[in-house]
Amino acid sequence: MITSTQNPRIKHLLLLQQKSAQRRADGLFVVEGRREVEHCLAAGFTLRTAFVCEEIAGSPFSLPPGTEMVPVSPNVYERIAYRGGTEGVVAVVEARRTRLSDLQLSASPLIVVLESVEKPGNLGAVLRSADAAGADAVVVCDPLTDLYNPNLIRSSIGALFTVPCVACSTEECIAFFKERGIRILTAQLQDSSLYYDTPMTGPTAIVMGTEATGLTEQWRQAADAHIRIPMLGRLDSLNVSVSAAILLFEAVRQRKI
Amino acid sequence: MITSTQNPRIKHLLLLQQKSAQRRADGLFVVEGRREVEHCLAAGFTLRTAFVCEEIAGSPFSLPPGTEMVPVSPNVYERIAYRGGTEGVVAVVEARRTRLSDLQLSASPLIVVLESVEKPGNLGAVLRSADAAGADAVVVCDPLTDLYNPNLIRSSIGALFTVPCVACSTEECIAFFKERGIRILTAQLQDSSLYYDTPMTGPTAIVMGTEATGLTEQWRQAADAHIRIPMLGRLDSLNVSVSAAILLFEAVRQRKI
Repeated sequence: MITSTQNPRIKHLLLLQQKSAQRRADGLFVVEGRREVEHCLAAGFTLRTAFVCEEIAGSPFSLPPGTEMVPVSPNVYERIAYRGGTEGVVAVVEARRTRLSDLQLSASPLIVVLESVEKPGNLGAVLRSADAAGADAVVVCDPLTDLYNPNLIRSSIGALFTVPCVACSTEECIAFFKERGIRILTAQLQDSSLYYDTPMTGPTAIVMGTEATGLTEQWRQAADAHIRIPMLGRLDSLNVSVSAAILLFEAVRQRKI
Repeated sequence: MITSTQNPRIKHLLLLQQKSAQRRADGLFVVEGRREVEHCLAAGFTLRTAFVCEEIAGSPFSLPPGTEMVPVSPNVYERIAYRGGTEGVVAVVEARRTRLSDLQLSASPLIVVLESVEKPGNLGAVLRSADAAGADAVVVCDPLTDLYNPNLIRSSIGALFTVPCVACSTEECIAFFKERGIRILTAQLQDSSLYYDTPMTGPTAIVMGTEATGLTEQWRQAADAHIRIPMLGRLDSLNVSVSAAILLFEAVRQRKI
């Protein structure tokens, strides 16, 4: 059992949590919590190591054969866990890259595209909304995005593993949609229709920019339609995961799944 | 100019930020940020004192005549500001209680009710969604809720001041809706219709429980209809502010404002 927070394996785990460069270099990331680990396994990821604090976990975990299980003491667990030790497991997982061509899309796919991500927590929340709406995929067109940021995984409450998530360039993404006949709906104020007046029953990608700067010209020009959510208050502002949910569930409504 | 974080006025300000008992005892609360203070003034609140750091604020504020303005040094500002000093103003404001009978409702009001609030940040986010949808009011049926919690104000990005917000008991709230002919739609899974099959063009209150425990029997029985958002993913979970936004914007869509 590891009982010291100075143990080299614990130090490496902390580096993986804190540094995206370390995650990239090692091809590894960290998942915390029992349900999150279960979703991660169900999605076919490979667990390298599970650090488990039995005092905290209570009942034992059933992990795939061959998974290394390392017991840690409560003081070590407290250091490596964000959520104050309610679940007792922190796992190191092998990263994998999903490409657009890997996506297995439904007959009439519903996809969310974020042009870039200001806060990892926002992308996590968008993934959660996308899961609820049964979206086929979330695409982030920003080569700098690290999909394995701990805040992202945490705020997605596991949706990073239930919704296929792709990071790629804007060019690739537009080409992919055009090729597949997926209609591009860009969320923007200028020259736009109300979102609920816009058909979303066919193959649809909903593209959203950042709260600060909106969408780039490249997406605006690639769009088949521009859509907006009417802002009826005084603040003119919605969180990006809330906007995504409103637009996705309008597609759900129109499709009457 | 106050230059010490040990100054009694600064200590009192910190107590107001940290302790809801202090806020209640003094009938005061704290607002940070230039835009938030503007929304607060526009809503008719009375500023008691504005602590301003001119180095950080840049351009001067125009505050109502009679407002006490207290200059503070950058080190003091850093101690009292949450957002790392980008705006230069932290104000002490007189609390006021809005009652159901104070609400000035539109001809066909749209109201959100939260039965109780797990996290203040969630209520702030619901207020933000309510502002965007042009809701008439947000009601919290939980006598313990402190509407002036700093996390709530911060996450509402000012919507606490643009959307009337009432805290009252469930009994009062149900009686008020019945009296005014406002239809009660409770968000719940059991015996429910899909939200988009439910008319929301008339006077409507959308009532939501907590993520953990759902709605109490009292609300379920008072309901004119039970509504649910279909969960099409694997996580069966949406953030309460996201759910509120989906339901509110369905009312917006049906009303075609």
